[in-house]
Amino acid sequence: MLFTKEEYKQRLKKVQTSMQEKGIELLISHDTNNMNYLTGYDAWSFYYAQCAIVHVNAEEPLCFVRAQDAGGAYIKTYLKNENVIVYDENYIHTWPKHPYDYLVEIIKERKWDKLSIGLEMDAHYFTAFCYEKIKQGLPNAKIKDSERLVNWARLIKSDAEIGFMKSAAIISQKGMKTAMEVINPGVRQCDAVGEIQKSLFYGTSEFGGEYSSIATLLPTGKGTSASHLTATQDKFVTGEATIIELSGVHNRYHAPMARTVLLGKPDQLKIDTMNKTIEALQAGIDQTKPGNTADDVAQAFWKVLDKYGIEKKSRTGYSIGIGYPPDWGEHTLNIYKGDMTVLEKNVCFHMIAVMQFGDWGVEASEAIRVTDNGSELFCDFPKELHIKS
Amino acid sequence: MLFTKEEYKQRLKKVQTSMQEKGIELLISHDTNNMNYLTGYDAWSFYYAQCAIVHVNAEEPLCFVRAQDAGGAYIKTYLKNENVIVYDENYIHTWPKHPYDYLVEIIKERKWDKLSIGLEMDAHYFTAFCYEKIKQGLPNAKIKDSERLVNWARLIKSDAEIGFMKSAAIISQKGMKTAMEVINPGVRQCDAVGEIQKSLFYGTSEFGGEYSSIATLLPTGKGTSASHLTATQDKFVTGEATIIELSGVHNRYHAPMARTVLLGKPDQLKIDTMNKTIEALQAGIDQTKPGNTADDVAQAFWKVLDKYGIEKKSRTGYSIGIGYPPDWGEHTLNIYKGDMTVLEKNVCFHMIAVMQFGDWGVEASEAIRVTDNGSELFCDFPKELHIKS
Repeated sequence: MLFTKEEYKQRLKKVQTSMQEKGIELLISHDTNNMNYLTGYDAWSFYYAQCAIVHVNAEEPLCFVRAQDAGGAYIKTYLKNENVIVYDENYIHTWPKHPYDYLVEIIKERKWDKLSIGLEMDAHYFTAFCYEKIKQGLPNAKIKDSERLVNWARLIKSDAEIGFMKSAAIISQKGMKTAMEVINPGVRQCDAVGEIQKSLFYGTSEFGGEYSSIATLLPTGKGTSASHLTATQDKFVTGEATIIELSGVHNRYHAPMARTVLLGKPDQLKIDTMNKTIEALQAGIDQTKPGNTADDVAQAFWKVLDKYGIEKKSRTGYSIGIGYPPDWGEHTLNIYKGDMTVLEKNVCFHMIAVMQFGDWGVEASEAIRVTDNGSELFCDFPKELHIKS
Repeated sequence: MLFTKEEYKQRLKKVQTSMQEKGIELLISHDTNNMNYLTGYDAWSFYYAQCAIVHVNAEEPLCFVRAQDAGGAYIKTYLKNENVIVYDENYIHTWPKHPYDYLVEIIKERKWDKLSIGLEMDAHYFTAFCYEKIKQGLPNAKIKDSERLVNWARLIKSDAEIGFMKSAAIISQKGMKTAMEVINPGVRQCDAVGEIQKSLFYGTSEFGGEYSSIATLLPTGKGTSASHLTATQDKFVTGEATIIELSGVHNRYHAPMARTVLLGKPDQLKIDTMNKTIEALQAGIDQTKPGNTADDVAQAFWKVLDKYGIEKKSRTGYSIGIGYPPDWGEHTLNIYKGDMTVLEKNVCFHMIAVMQFGDWGVEASEAIRVTDNGSELFCDFPKELHIKS
């Protein structure tokens, strides 16, 4: 158990309070991250239907997993065994049969089928098929979109969570240091990622690393115009830039970082663009403190870009914490003009400037924690364009 | 472009023929693997809404991605630029706004809003929210579940695809060899995965590796009862078994493999159970040939287990090929009693025996190709319980 039982109970209470406010009596939380947050469950089993089920008055959530994963739930969750609900293997890939048929049965058995039921309508893996099973199976329930109710409960981190993120950050630094060392002309991209992955898993002697919820992103050359490209077996080329976006992970907590490296002689346009980007990031970071909003941070960031006449349409940050594939964003706070989320102590976000200009781009980012009076960075790694001549 | 334009055109034709048979005029294919299969698109952008759109009479599919990924689509797909449809960044995490609002607009603009539209209802990432956007936005469309129409088109592999899987298999062998070398008493699990990942990315001098659609699974000790657990920073312990499940990946094609290693002195129960499992796998492999069904393979497998009085409820295989997180299964053929899918040449599947017994388990698997007269294994690696005394 990674957290005290008390911490898990506080999480449950926070979620139940929010459920009451929204008039939700039963919550089906399909989001992998939310399931981990509520129960401690941790396994690569999210490719088949699973969820946490929270009754507004329950002492514990239920953890709904397939039979093959029951052992994992007994090992990883803090729950009493009776609260691990196991569905049979004959629900796997035997459509139209579906695990949510069994979930519907469970809900009926417990006489919860007339309740107001919250569903995470846009959560990864909560498919249209799951939704139809619930709607058709529970015609007397009042179905509501619970939106990102549990995600919002995750926004402010506990000290224990911050501790895991700090460990993750040390691992991120190690991974980025390796990246800067191994990215050289003539080296295959895949080989560089092999070394980066090794660093990220080894972590430190104190904190081991884990698989990240996003693969090491490594767009290079023209690919720097497309931030989500991954490594191929092509070689790095002199004169080209490469963006590295990665995250160390510890106990599923992330502290992502993006940097850009240029192989060959200095390219003034890229250097200048990177410096303007860093100035904009710093302006945003300077506005990061309790009481300010995400919008305040975004306004400061874009004010610098406007000064330089740089157009950037995509948001420039999002909250972070627990992560499972395919994403390490929490889907709550956005660093974007108009997001009026108020920053509080221990809100953590990834402030990332993806700058794209036709067939090239540069990128830098920081994982940031809101402190009592301002903010601190999780990582300590120069943001400047790294030039390897 | 990884395949000839002709091969992409054949894929499209196969899908369009199947659409006609099912009375589907427009297909929204949200599945990441299907999108890659139909367009060549390849990036870690599936954490936000994206899809391939196939009109039953179109010359090319459309590739629907966010603005930040347009560059990636131009680089990776075989499509004309006009067939890359780009949605604005202001649709990202600004609910109730959603990229599918724009998709609905596109469909209306093209006057496709009264067509019979197929949706992949249970595809990973096709959320209930996407579905509601389509239903509410296109009230005159006839919505159908296209089920796994494109997945089924992927079942029989081309020679080029088989080539990529053979490269992936060589990488799998390298990864497993590393695993067997580095898993030792006192070694941290995460460090072992660091070495395994390095092997998997380096691949060979000819074929580089890529991120796998499932992380290296590494249940150990009691964890062997739970096949989807991943590495922690705990150390391997003398006397305990560890299951390794991994896949080499080349151009997104997978060839997975599972093996079990025991540290310390031989444990006769585990050795015997492993041998019985291998006998069952071999019986299934012997039934693998064109004309036989998945059921024939399953019957042969379970007949051996029945002989030994071993109970196993989960299926024992599934088709494989392209893979993106969270899964490398194709969601079509199942090696399971009652699955009457007929095997044909170049059907490929992962035959995996996950054997769980309360608080312990063993596992072995083979990636298999159906040949003209029988079958061949992609990998060449002993299946026996590997004992390191």
